[in-house]
This record gives sequence, structure tokens and C-alpha cells, in this order.
Amino acid sequence: MKPLILITNDDGVDARGIRSLIDIARSYGEVVVMAPMCNASGSALSFTGMRPLRVETVSQESGCTIYACDGTPVDCVKIAQEHFCPRTPQLMLSGINHGSNASINILYSGTMGAVLEASMAGLQAVGFSLLDHSPDADFSPAEPYIRSVIDEVLHNGLPAQVSLNVNIPVPPDGQLRGMRVCRQSSARWADSYEKRVDPHGRPYFWLTGRFECDDNGPETDQWALENGYVSIVPTTPDHTDFRMLETMEKRIACLKF
Amino acid sequence: MKPLILITNDDGVDARGIRSLIDIARSYGEVVVMAPMCNASGSALSFTGMRPLRVETVSQESGCTIYACDGTPVDCVKIAQEHFCPRTPQLMLSGINHGSNASINILYSGTMGAVLEASMAGLQAVGFSLLDHSPDADFSPAEPYIRSVIDEVLHNGLPAQVSLNVNIPVPPDGQLRGMRVCRQSSARWADSYEKRVDPHGRPYFWLTGRFECDDNGPETDQWALENGYVSIVPTTPDHTDFRMLETMEKRIACLKF
Repeated sequence: MKPLILITNDDGVDARGIRSLIDIARSYGEVVVMAPMCNASGSALSFTGMRPLRVETVSQESGCTIYACDGTPVDCVKIAQEHFCPRTPQLMLSGINHGSNASINILYSGTMGAVLEASMAGLQAVGFSLLDHSPDADFSPAEPYIRSVIDEVLHNGLPAQVSLNVNIPVPPDGQLRGMRVCRQSSARWADSYEKRVDPHGRPYFWLTGRFECDDNGPETDQWALENGYVSIVPTTPDHTDFRMLETMEKRIACLKF
Repeated sequence: MKPLILITNDDGVDARGIRSLIDIARSYGEVVVMAPMCNASGSALSFTGMRPLRVETVSQESGCTIYACDGTPVDCVKIAQEHFCPRTPQLMLSGINHGSNASINILYSGTMGAVLEASMAGLQAVGFSLLDHSPDADFSPAEPYIRSVIDEVLHNGLPAQVSLNVNIPVPPDGQLRGMRVCRQSSARWADSYEKRVDPHGRPYFWLTGRFECDDNGPETDQWALENGYVSIVPTTPDHTDFRMLETMEKRIACLKF
């Protein structure tokens, strides 16, 4: 039987990036898409617990059914598995995201939130992002790399709870130089809120921000992307800082309650 | 000068848990609270980029100003630093959450999302959660432990980007047995959506779920909590699975594009 592939994203079911990913995935097997009805960028791993969810069928063709859900990417992964997948998916793909999910952007990304969610649910999961925010970005140069990663994961699998964060740069000369396995760069968003006043004299605040990354050694995803390589970071949902365990044990041992 | 402490949570500015944390924090220094106007549980690290934010002043007393924001906990941390803190906070505290943020719950938690956000922004940050979901939970047994952790972090600091996830159990006999430094347990949510039909004949889906954790050895937060200990997990925003780097490099080396 052909593999079942579950697809979601955070840019919404109509985004060009997810349509490109669907086209690629259809050549590998049966596809079920469950994606947010609207743009849900910056959803991280948020989920909907205080209201119910609605699901609409967008299209139904042989081997490819597309649903839209009025929840987050994590909601999409959760509800698709129980109610909309005919069997357990062999693979879960997310993206192709319009914009980078490298470095600390993984923490805010709904596209990668869905990937981490799927990996915790026991699925093989990969997220793809293109470093171009524009709605009409050209995803075609990324296709051979995306196919290689899908081939590789379908063939060799991933260990439990390990997923992949794949980012694809758009070099000035259009030439991708290859693929590198990397660690996640440390970075920060220098956020700034522009304070404005509404027509009734009340203040409101618009988020703007600048990405600042000094952690760009050759082993990092940021270096790879800046140098024309596709970056691939093996990711875990484990937030434990293992380097700190011993130190903290000593520090806590002195405490009195 | 007394330390400035920034406080947020995800249960909302009126929750009993944040009020307990404010009472504790006021004895350490000046307090600025910026918390969601409504319950924002399950917000993870989601942020608001597509609409502006509003901020209301809830109360203003000597040494303690409380604001409410119509965004997520991450929004609260971002906007408070730029526009509502008189200087850089020495400490950022989140909680006290009504319910566990141990194990993989850290990934969904807005309370811990705010902590990870603060740590990426360069603040010393600690999240506190009590394993009691009820709105009128009794937070008083947790107080000595919370004070010890605040004392410790104010005195010794935390390395860059390291934060703490502190969970406090409610043992059947009411006796907390101490505090243990732990790693984050692996686990899964066995989610289930109850399908219902609205008065117009259209289906909708309510999320329900059951927490399943088999990873409960004595080094885990789940073990600590089940055995009456306060768990303290040093946390990092780094999702890299370092154990997989070498293997993935070998696997990727074989790929053709």
C-alpha cells in the first residue's frame, strides 16, 4: 500500500507553499491535508481547548483530500489523526513555510509547532521552510532537496520523538550549494512596539522586530543558510538543559524550606 | 536599589495563582505585572503579529503596578520590557500556573512560553506551576519552595538562556517531601475529539485528552511529582537533538539533489 502522508502548515490552506508541498507529496502516496483556514503564523504549539473546532472539506480528489480547520497547526495535527486520516500516516510534512524557521524561530513557528506535535504523537515528521516571505515566492528550486529528505526519511525513518527542521535559503545567485546538518543557532528578536493612537485617542501597539544572531559558527543553521546551504536540524521536544543538571543539583541541595 | 521583578502567567491577570505570586514577589522588590486579560492557557510561545495590542492599567500601588494586555503571555513579556518596565527586570516570574507544566506540558504552556521568551531576551526567568487546576486552589503550601527558588536565583543567577520550570505537587497527605532537580519526562497526550452536532445540523469537535507517561524513572520530573517532591527542570530554548547530529550527517552525505 502507498504511504499515507499528512500535511499541514501555518500560512493557511491557500498558501502557495503548502500547495507546492502537496504537489511533491502526491507522487509518494496518498495525501491528507489539514491546514488552518487562515494565516496562523506565530502559533507555536498553541492549541484550542476553550471552544470547539470546525472542519471544512476544501477538495477531494483521488489520493488527495484537503481539509481546512479553524484552529491552530497543532489542532490540525491532533484532529486529523483521529477523525480524518483513514489510517496512521507514515509521514507528516509541514510547510513549505513562507519565511525562515531556523534558529530560535522554531519556537514561535506554527509550522514547526505542528512538526513537534506530530513527533510527540509518534509520527515521523519534517518541516520545510523557504527563506522568502512573499506570498508568490518561487518554491521550485527547493524541490530536489525536499524530495531527497522525504526519500531519506521514508526509507530510513527517524528515532522516536526526533523530527527535522529543514530550511532552504534563497541565495543571491540562485545557486543552492548543498545540504548541511546543523545545530539550532542561538539568537534574539530585538522587538519594538510602535505606539499609535486610535481615532478615539486611545493607544495601541504594533509589533515590529529585528532578528539578531551572533551565534553563527559553521556548525549552526544560521551559517549554513547565510552560505547558501539547505540547513537540516534534528529536533527534539525535550527542553531540558542537561548541562545544568549537576550544577542545579548542588545549588538546590543547600536550600531550606 | 530593590530588584525589579516582571510577572506574567497564562491563566489571566485575575487568576488566584498570579495574585499569590505577586504577594510573594512584592517582598523582594518592585513588581511590574503584565498578564493576559483573559485565560490564555495553551498559548505556548504564540505571539500577536497581525493586529495591534491594547494594554490596560489594572492597579497602581507603591512598588506594584498591574497591567493587562489583550495578547498572549509572550506578547506580555515583549511589550512590558519596552514600554512598561522602568528599567531592565532582574527577574521574570511566571505563574503560579493552575495545573501541571511538567513533562511535555511545557511545550503547550503559555506560562512556560513566557519563561522561554524571557530567557531568550536575556532575563533570568522562572515558571511556577501547582498541580491543581481548580480556580480556588490553595497556593500557600508552595510558598516556602517558591521563596527558596527566588532567593537562590536572585543570589546566584542563571547562565544565559537557561530558565527554570518549577512544578509543585499536591500530595494526598499534603506533605511536600522536598525539591528535586530533574529532566523533562517524555510523554504523550492521547487526544480525542468528541464530535457533536450543532442546532443547524453541522458537526463540531471538542478536544478532550488523557496524559500518558511511561517515562517516569527517578531522574524525571514526573517521578518527582508523583512522589511528593517539587520538581525543578533547568530548561533551554534549544530544540537541537544533539544525539542525532552525527547520524544525520552520515545519512545526508549519501543524498543526491
